[in-house]
Amino acid sequence: MIGKEIQPFVAQAFKPTAQGKGEFVEVTDGDVRGNWAVFFFYPADFTFVCPTELEDLAEQYDTLKGMGVEVYSVSTDTHFSHKAWHETSEKIAKIKFPMLGDQNHTIANNFGVLREGQGLADRATFVVDPDGVIQVMEITSEGVGRNATELVRKIKAAQYVRANPGQVCPAKWEEGDDTLAPSLDLVGKI
Amino acid sequence: MIGKEIQPFVAQAFKPTAQGKGEFVEVTDGDVRGNWAVFFFYPADFTFVCPTELEDLAEQYDTLKGMGVEVYSVSTDTHFSHKAWHETSEKIAKIKFPMLGDQNHTIANNFGVLREGQGLADRATFVVDPDGVIQVMEITSEGVGRNATELVRKIKAAQYVRANPGQVCPAKWEEGDDTLAPSLDLVGKI
Amino acid sequence: MIGKEIQPFVAQAFKPTAQGKGEFVEVTDGDVRGNWAVFFFYPADFTFVCPTELEDLAEQYDTLKGMGVEVYSVSTDTHFSHKAWHETSEKIAKIKFPMLGDQNHTIANNFGVLREGQGLADRATFVVDPDGVIQVMEITSEGVGRNATELVRKIKAAQYVRANPGQVCPAKWEEGDDTLAPSLDLVGKI
Amino acid sequence: MIGKEIQPFVAQAFKPTAQGKGEFVEVTDGDVRGNWAVFFFYPADFTFVCPTELEDLAEQYDTLKGMGVEVYSVSTDTHFSHKAWHETSEKIAKIKFPMLGDQNHTIANNFGVLREGQGLADRATFVVDPDGVIQVMEITSEGVGRNATELVRKIKAAQYVRANPGQVCPAKWEEGDDTLAPSLDLVGKI
Amino acid sequence: MIGKEIQPFVAQAFKPTAQGKGEFVEVTDGDVRGNWAVFFFYPADFTFVCPTELEDLAEQYDTLKGMGVEVYSVSTDTHFSHKAWHETSEKIAKIKFPMLGDQNHTIANNFGVLREGQGLADRATFVVDPDGVIQVMEITSEGVGRNATELVRKIKAAQYVRANPGQVCPAKWEEGDDTLAPSLDLVGKI
Amino acid sequence: MIGKEIQPFVAQAFKPTAQGKGEFVEVTDGDVRGNWAVFFFYPADFTFVCPTELEDLAEQYDTLKGMGVEVYSVSTDTHFSHKAWHETSEKIAKIKFPMLGDQNHTIANNFGVLREGQGLADRATFVVDPDGVIQVMEITSEGVGRNATELVRKIKAAQYVRANPGQVCPAKWEEGDDTLAPSLDLVGKI
Amino acid sequence: MIGKEIQPFVAQAFKPTAQGKGEFVEVTDGDVRGNWAVFFFYPADFTFVCPTELEDLAEQYDTLKGMGVEVYSVSTDTHFSHKAWHETSEKIAKIKFPMLGDQNHTIANNFGVLREGQGLADRATFVVDPDGVIQVMEITSEGVGRNATELVRKIKAAQYVRANPGQVCPAKWEEGDDTLAPSLDLVGKI
Amino acid sequence: MIGKEIQPFVAQAFKPTAQGKGEFVEVTDGDVRGNWAVFFFYPADFTFVCPTELEDLAEQYDTLKGMGVEVYSVSTDTHFSHKAWHETSEKIAKIKFPMLGDQNHTIANNFGVLREGQGLADRATFVVDPDGVIQVMEITSEGVGRNATELVRKIKAAQYVRANPGQVCPAKWEEGDDTLAPSLDLVGKI
Amino acid sequence: MIGKEIQPFVAQAFKPTAQGKGEFVEVTDGDVRGNWAVFFFYPADFTFVCPTELEDLAEQYDTLKGMGVEVYSVSTDTHFSHKAWHETSEKIAKIKFPMLGDQNHTIANNFGVLREGQGLADRATFVVDPDGVIQVMEITSEGVGRNATELVRKIKAAQYVRANPGQVCPAKWEEGDDTLAPSLDLVGKI
Amino acid sequence: MIGKEIQPFVAQAFKPTAQGKGEFVEVTDGDVRGNWAVFFFYPADFTFVCPTELEDLAEQYDTLKGMGVEVYSVSTDTHFSHKAWHETSEKIAKIKFPMLGDQNHTIANNFGVLREGQGLADRATFVVDPDGVIQVMEITSEGVGRNATELVRKIKAAQYVRANPGQVCPAKWEEGDDTLAPSLDLVGKI
Repeated sequence: MIGKEIQPFVAQAFKPTAQGKGEFVEVTDGDVRGNWAVFFFYPADFTFVCPTELEDLAEQYDTLKGMGVEVYSVSTDTHFSHKAWHETSEKIAKIKFPMLGDQNHTIANNFGVLREGQGLADRATFVVDPDGVIQVMEITSEGVGRNATELVRKIKAAQYVRANPGQVCPAKWEEGDDTLAPSLDLVGKI
Repeated sequence: MIGKEIQPFVAQAFKPTAQGKGEFVEVTDGDVRGNWAVFFFYPADFTFVCPTELEDLAEQYDTLKGMGVEVYSVSTDTHFSHKAWHETSEKIAKIKFPMLGDQNHTIANNFGVLREGQGLADRATFVVDPDGVIQVMEITSEGVGRNATELVRKIKAAQYVRANPGQVCPAKWEEGDDTLAPSLDLVGKI
Repeated sequence: MIGKEIQPFVAQAFKPTAQGKGEFVEVTDGDVRGNWAVFFFYPADFTFVCPTELEDLAEQYDTLKGMGVEVYSVSTDTHFSHKAWHETSEKIAKIKFPMLGDQNHTIANNFGVLREGQGLADRATFVVDPDGVIQVMEITSEGVGRNATELVRKIKAAQYVRANPGQVCPAKWEEGDDTLAPSLDLVGKI
Repeated sequence: MIGKEIQPFVAQAFKPTAQGKGEFVEVTDGDVRGNWAVFFFYPADFTFVCPTELEDLAEQYDTLKGMGVEVYSVSTDTHFSHKAWHETSEKIAKIKFPMLGDQNHTIANNFGVLREGQGLADRATFVVDPDGVIQVMEITSEGVGRNATELVRKIKAAQYVRANPGQVCPAKWEEGDDTLAPSLDLVGKI
Repeated sequence: MIGKEIQPFVAQAFKPTAQGKGEFVEVTDGDVRGNWAVFFFYPADFTFVCPTELEDLAEQYDTLKGMGVEVYSVSTDTHFSHKAWHETSEKIAKIKFPMLGDQNHTIANNFGVLREGQGLADRATFVVDPDGVIQVMEITSEGVGRNATELVRKIKAAQYVRANPGQVCPAKWEEGDDTLAPSLDLVGKI
Repeated sequence: MIGKEIQPFVAQAFKPTAQGKGEFVEVTDGDVRGNWAVFFFYPADFTFVCPTELEDLAEQYDTLKGMGVEVYSVSTDTHFSHKAWHETSEKIAKIKFPMLGDQNHTIANNFGVLREGQGLADRATFVVDPDGVIQVMEITSEGVGRNATELVRKIKAAQYVRANPGQVCPAKWEEGDDTLAPSLDLVGKI
Repeated sequence: MIGKEIQPFVAQAFKPTAQGKGEFVEVTDGDVRGNWAVFFFYPADFTFVCPTELEDLAEQYDTLKGMGVEVYSVSTDTHFSHKAWHETSEKIAKIKFPMLGDQNHTIANNFGVLREGQGLADRATFVVDPDGVIQVMEITSEGVGRNATELVRKIKAAQYVRANPGQVCPAKWEEGDDTLAPSLDLVGKI
Repeated sequence: MIGKEIQPFVAQAFKPTAQGKGEFVEVTDGDVRGNWAVFFFYPADFTFVCPTELEDLAEQYDTLKGMGVEVYSVSTDTHFSHKAWHETSEKIAKIKFPMLGDQNHTIANNFGVLREGQGLADRATFVVDPDGVIQVMEITSEGVGRNATELVRKIKAAQYVRANPGQVCPAKWEEGDDTLAPSLDLVGKI
Repeated sequence: MIGKEIQPFVAQAFKPTAQGKGEFVEVTDGDVRGNWAVFFFYPADFTFVCPTELEDLAEQYDTLKGMGVEVYSVSTDTHFSHKAWHETSEKIAKIKFPMLGDQNHTIANNFGVLREGQGLADRATFVVDPDGVIQVMEITSEGVGRNATELVRKIKAAQYVRANPGQVCPAKWEEGDDTLAPSLDLVGKI
Repeated sequence: MIGKEIQPFVAQAFKPTAQGKGEFVEVTDGDVRGNWAVFFFYPADFTFVCPTELEDLAEQYDTLKGMGVEVYSVSTDTHFSHKAWHETSEKIAKIKFPMLGDQNHTIANNFGVLREGQGLADRATFVVDPDGVIQVMEITSEGVGRNATELVRKIKAAQYVRANPGQVCPAKWEEGDDTLAPSLDLVGKI
């Protein structure tokens, strides 16, 4: 998937303003291009691991917005269901990013994360650059929670590499750490 | 990929004992089953991000062995090349896990991470459980380094879930944190 | 569809006992056979016409149970979503029949009522006899509500015909009205 | 079928003026468009349930005409046979709408109601709007009579929804009853 | 078609005893074998040339029965329609042979006489011998009446040839006329 | 075949003037159009039933010419063979119409009367109208002679129907007999 | 064709005894095997070059019989036609070998000599040995007569070679001439 | 093959002037057209029957040239081999016509005389007219020599027929013999 | 080709004993196995570079026989042609190994060296080990002569490697030179 | 392969200037055309026979450059690996020609030398002329070293033939030796 462009989609989303408040908006692949984006898939509204992960992500949303990154959560529930969940769950109520309804399975299929025979999406994260190209992906099995802090670290590295052609970020790189400039002289020297 | 079983392969590997020392061994999918395993793909020997990531992983190798996890690094170089790199690079010299030669592209294709038209593997990590089933995966684009500490965290969560059926690990779960036991009463309550 | 047998399916359902209370059960085509059944499809939880129709049906549920008829409501939402809706909607809280989660679209496809490109089911009703054979069907477009009283009338006629081979029920037949016994002498005489 | 446009057909019909009197006319899909229409399929002339249903419908014909709805009865008999039946049956003699001859099975196939291996149509009703789009459908098995009053109720609801965009009719809606205007605030509140 | 065996069919027939009286019987290809048979196709009940032809045939029915020949009239109308026609038409009321309902088009297709795009049979006659093999066929276009006397003449010739192997009947042969015994000496001599 | 146009062919024919005298001419489907025509197939020159039938037809040739009908006899023999037969057989010597050589089997195949595996034509007659459309056909099995008088009767009826649109000829119709004008009022009245 | 075995066929033949006398016999490929045979194809009975060639061959028939060779003439005419020709032609009357009727084109097709689009055989001769294998073939275009004397010369050479393995017959070899015994020493010496 | 045009080919040939002397020339199908030609195939240089046949043909070469006929001998040997054979064999040294090298098998395949699985041509002769159309062909099995005198006779007949349209040559025709002019009056008279 | 087994073939060969003397023998792939073999392809007998190469090889034949190696020269000429060439060429007369006739192109195709569209083999050499496996191959374009001394050197190396598993021969290795025993310690050390 | 043009490729190469020094350059098929070129394939960097062959070739590089010949070594290792090998091996350090990285297998596949199932190239040499056409090829099995001196000899012969059309080089030809001018008079004389 890495290096592939995202495919076309049209989805109805619930974009919250306050708990259970907000509006229904249409989101397409066209809206995604031009900015960094995170697609954050999870299996189902009203379930168990998902809200902790979504809350974790909601808490990083201001940071991500500050980095120029939009976040889209996606499940195969409808936008009606997302709205209802937002209204009734304290954790989910923290969300301010658009929650996409993918009951037609288009987006989950586009990213290759629809669980065969279940009608539910994997617990998968994709980082998409402003050209619509996937730069980072991660999937964990049922029951293993993700880590929004590590996600932020990886997006920062991807942004740094895009902004500084010719530089690469070593393992565990954090903002401010040294980077490397590949050259023939470095071959076999690291 | 999550939930799929690994496919058959046969590879020559360099298994180091000391810098540039060690032996050439054959590794197959049969050797992998029965224990937890990490497949750690990288593009090419003698390049730039890879050695920092491999060093980072080498430093966690004792921890991982203690958790019952074997590590396999994989690139499309030969085992001869791996041996030569191990001998000449200080960082790589720290590696004690088997370095698989995939110059025939079988393993990279099995895991779907061969970069089309380049003959190189993605920067991809797969965690495989003792049944040969992929539980966690992660890919970053060229230039974005991975984080072995986060990898250890996720493997611990996956091991916990396997050991404790009926429990799930929330976001950012670390060993010792609370877990959740899904039930009808919890529906919509988290 | 009339005269066709229902096809295999496996679904998770929420079977309510009190508002937002109940249990998650698995329902299959095997559970359906042996009794009369109504499959009552609707587009989505938390929407507008549907709850009035479901309430209308809920009010006939005791009558239908008395006639030996089980009711299954079906949408492409999950059983988690059904449970949440049951908990928060007064009208839905009246439901006591199993609410099937069809997020994998199997049942809607089996009955040919998945709206192409939307991932939602039609507003469709099917009456299935104890042999699993569809006897009556009805679909209305978005915004046109169904009528549970008329549904009860048609099920009674279908049950009468099954119980009295050789008899047929004329238009608008209500329980107790005369029926007809087709014979060569009646040809062209009605 | 709901939401699909009707397909092309050409048929010979008997259009009665008095018992066994009238004319033979050609009816095509082009004649149908521009007005609301009911296609009322039945298995065969000179049989048993059909005449009661056709009489029931004939009695609503003035009402339906007043609502701007044309009615077409259809069986796989010829228009010659329709004319002969109209002449000899008291119930059928009440019909004033065109009786289409579909001995070539085109129309029954178009609507998907030809009984496989029998050469007879199902007992099926379709309501078609002025754009030629099917809005309501209903099929009952052999021996179960339909109800023209309920048909009128559903057409009224469909006409109301078409005339009042943004309004929907709840279950059992009768002319004059309240309707609903869907909005985000109503989500999960009905 | 000549020399081909008839294909399987199952049909409902009206077998008259008196005007509009009689019974509904099932007729299959199995009933046909063992005796000589005539299949007499015509386009539609209640039309114009057909009744004169059917009356003509009805008048030869005793003769044909005396020769061991059963007659089957066939149109794409139902057996219900045949019964109604028998009741209301003086000419048709003379018929005593089974009138087959072929509304499913099976028999007309078997004999290759279904008019494409019309759902009606050709005006076709087939003589079938006791082995189910077609010996004589004749088709006339719309509006050209057949001749039952000539049909009887041809069946007599066919029966003579079957009964007298080695003999052939010259043109216009009538019962009692001379026949020919082919031999090498006759080659070129007739 | 009825209602189908004849297909293209080119054939060498023997057109007799006196016994064994005449000329070889080419006949094509183009020569046939514009007049009524009879195609009279038979199995083989120098055989047994054929000459009696051909003689019978030869005796009606003046009548047919007077009606504007051309006659073509056809077998899979060559025109050389036809000429030789005409010279040596008294019956055949009466023929004055073109005898077509179809040793390439084109014409017999066009009319669907080539006996599979024998290379011989059926004993088949086709009446073709001036538009090249087949109006009447008849086939008898080996050994059953045809009747040219009945053929004349049928051609007269076909010509009458073509000349008098809206009129049809009842069974056994002879020139001068009454015909019928179909109308709605006659439906079911004959 | 040389070196290929003849293919199966069944044909009706006229086997003459005196002018226009004889019998009709069935000849198959099985009758051919076990003896030397000549298949002598020609276009059509009653034509021009053919009878001179057939007469030429008829005059060599005793010689050929004496050499153990059977002769079969073949055209696409019937055996009836052959009989009639034998009766009326003085040259053909000399024939005593079987004249095969190939109106079904099987034999001409087997030997690859059916003229495309004509239904006539080439002017072709085939010599077949007792194993059914073709040893000599010759075809001349329309209008060029063959030479039975040369045919006899070639059959004698072929019989000599079969009888004397290791010997070959030089050009223009006549019975009694020297033959050659190929050997390595003769290579390049002739 | 008779009546077919020759197909394209390009070949290297040895065209002798004196024993083992001459030149290498390219010969194509284009060179053949415009004159009569003989293609004289034989299996292999330096073998046994072939040189006697080639010598026989060489002795007729002046006669054939006088008749306007070019001769081409063809085997699957190279032109180098032909030159070497011409130099070392007394019989072959008499040849003055072009000897074509067909080591690529094109010409032998074009004429259908390549022996399957052997890479050698049949002992085959083809006479081609100035339009490139094959008029006469002959093949003899291994060991049976051909006869150049009979070949000359047949070419003369073919040339006579081409020069005198409407005339045909009877069997064994020699230059100066009578020919026949086919006409209807001759049908069955020869 | 290297590492592939030779494919089946059957060929006629000239095996010389003295100039132009010898015998014709059949050689198959079965004869090749069990010993080392050289297949020495060349374009054509009686040409230019080939004889110098064949003479060069003939002079090494005793050496090669001493090493247990059989030699087979192959061209698309026949064995007759090989014999004739051996008789007339001084250089070729030195040959004592079998000269295979491949006029059917089987062997040249097996080894992939038939020049497309020419019917001639490449100037190609193959060394085959006793298991029938190709160990060395070499092809030069038209006009570039090969070198039998270098061929002998390579065969010796191949024989050494087969005889001494675990040893390899460095560049330009001559009998008696040092060889190398690959080991992990040598990796990257040469 | 001989006579075929090279196919398109794009490769990264290490072009050394001093031990482990140099630059990374892109090499394409376009760079190859216009000069003579050698493609020198070998299995893998850091192995055993390869370095002796590459050293042998490196020692001939000045000679080859003087002849206008560029050399490209190719293995399925990356250019990074080539650089590392050059730095650490004394023999390889002598190389001054571009070392192509073919980890994507394109070039090895183009020349047909990728070992199936191993991902390594054969030990193969190709000489390509300035038109990009392969003139000489050679492959040896694992363990058999090549000989750069013989390679130089063959390139000189190929260059001589290209420079002197009409001349060919006999076996073992060395610069300055006599060449041959093929002519008809030489046929069979060498």
